[in-house]
Amino acid sequence: MVKTYVFGHKSPDSDTITSSIVMANLENKLGNTDAKAYRLGSINKETEFILNYLNMDAPELLESIEDGSDVILVDHNSPSESIDNLNNLNILKIVDHHKLALETSYPLFLRFEPVGCTETILFKLYQENGVEITKEIATLMLSAIVSDTLLLKSPTTTEDDISAVKALSKIAEVDVEEYGLEMLKAGTDLSSFTIDEILQLDAKQIDFKDVRSIINQVNTASIDDVMEMKDELEEGISKIIDSENLDLFILLITDIVNSNSQVIALGKSAKLIEKAYGVELIDNTALLEGVVSRKKQVVPIMTESA
Amino acid sequence: MVKTYVFGHKSPDSDTITSSIVMANLENKLGNTDAKAYRLGSINKETEFILNYLNMDAPELLESIEDGSDVILVDHNSPSESIDNLNNLNILKIVDHHKLALETSYPLFLRFEPVGCTETILFKLYQENGVEITKEIATLMLSAIVSDTLLLKSPTTTEDDISAVKALSKIAEVDVEEYGLEMLKAGTDLSSFTIDEILQLDAKQIDFKDVRSIINQVNTASIDDVMEMKDELEEGISKIIDSENLDLFILLITDIVNSNSQVIALGKSAKLIEKAYGVELIDNTALLEGVVSRKKQVVPIMTESA
Repeated sequence: MVKTYVFGHKSPDSDTITSSIVMANLENKLGNTDAKAYRLGSINKETEFILNYLNMDAPELLESIEDGSDVILVDHNSPSESIDNLNNLNILKIVDHHKLALETSYPLFLRFEPVGCTETILFKLYQENGVEITKEIATLMLSAIVSDTLLLKSPTTTEDDISAVKALSKIAEVDVEEYGLEMLKAGTDLSSFTIDEILQLDAKQIDFKDVRSIINQVNTASIDDVMEMKDELEEGISKIIDSENLDLFILLITDIVNSNSQVIALGKSAKLIEKAYGVELIDNTALLEGVVSRKKQVVPIMTESA
Repeated sequence: MVKTYVFGHKSPDSDTITSSIVMANLENKLGNTDAKAYRLGSINKETEFILNYLNMDAPELLESIEDGSDVILVDHNSPSESIDNLNNLNILKIVDHHKLALETSYPLFLRFEPVGCTETILFKLYQENGVEITKEIATLMLSAIVSDTLLLKSPTTTEDDISAVKALSKIAEVDVEEYGLEMLKAGTDLSSFTIDEILQLDAKQIDFKDVRSIINQVNTASIDDVMEMKDELEEGISKIIDSENLDLFILLITDIVNSNSQVIALGKSAKLIEKAYGVELIDNTALLEGVVSRKKQVVPIMTESA
């Protein structure tokens, strides 16, 4: 019987999925043999590439969980990004690199660091506990760090992420640049998605003061390819603005090769983008040079301008 | 110029004071030479004993702090127990063993473990970072663990606390039982306090559902000695109940030698004690056998009974 559920956030990305597997393995090695990795949603194309590379199954989908169960959270701590009854569960541990958005009525184990990726923290935990990092575990860790930091080029990248990747690439026996770019490109394949699905792939609801907003980020190796769908994307965005009663929807189309983002902004507060970045929206779109990180280069700047 | 303020909670106890010193030292050794320990209130008798034993000055009193300053919190994370403008400060790190009671707008370093004492976590951090634990640092760590766990006898004690004390007693070159009992007894000296001061020494405002309460814990080597002041204590408690508009005030007089607590309970919800522990309050007082931990043996049981 499973006693400890290990999982990351809804709309799982590569960090959330690999961290669940890597954390459950760490727990197993440390004697909690009832810990098992789960996921709260569908696997994306990038994560699929990683799991295929390792010939590994995805964690089981967790639809619901009994009140009072023991859980370990990775790569998130906000109840809004977690399983619905989080407040009725017994959280044993959290390993995360996000802001703190949870309160508890009991003490627990927390390991948060402001680094680029949860796997960088897990890399340290393996070392501190003397648990072997196998080739498979190293590949999972390295893949997630490359994913979250866009090949260590995002401004979220820290010295700890860089030194983890350096050590892990030797154990994983991969060429980080080559493998990483192939992996990131796999994640940019939008061919199997409808417009509505693309607009929900990595959407976060974030309010800039009283400006009710969604920012959705889509990685690509070619901005032009995505912009070919501009009319359909704008139509879909308008529908979401209406149904969600938003002031602003930002679609951030991030070029992972050249490290820029093309933005499509709709809604009555769209001009906030112009104010924040000193750009002019022409036909609802503008290029934000050097912008790749929603967390570091969009949220704080938009908040300040709002 | 001081760049990083390191401090524990208001109404500081031995864990909060020693952890501030020990954490600031760790930061210094790791290269953050601008980290300095502070305190948010007066040093208690027990902590005075520890600092005298080491011939060490108390950290400087921190009256206020400029918005935007860098801080490190130890032994607390609740804004209500911290400096008033906590929400306008930049929290770099928190090392704590309490429940999670804070939200942030930015990622930070968190190291929480459900152990008996913050110093047990700091002991691990020193080891993980290969920082030398000097005789002085070991004595500070050991003293706090003995204080928080009442000589490793409180139910809050974990295996990690026990093994930390074992290792630390060798470096500190102290007999834990002998030194520890002398230290705890020093903390029970109430002779220099007014009744009002005794009633605020270790008072925590805790609501049991809708029962607005304060629990104050006083350690003693002789319950009889404290009960000699019962009339004056009750008079002081009644004044606090009126001025703070409380439903319940619990004074927990804890016998650190025999591990029991005599309780004095006043207020319109005083009968909650009878329901929770199956005891009868006679003249507002009862003996709670084996009860020494407010966190583990009072708060959860009272909450359940409320």
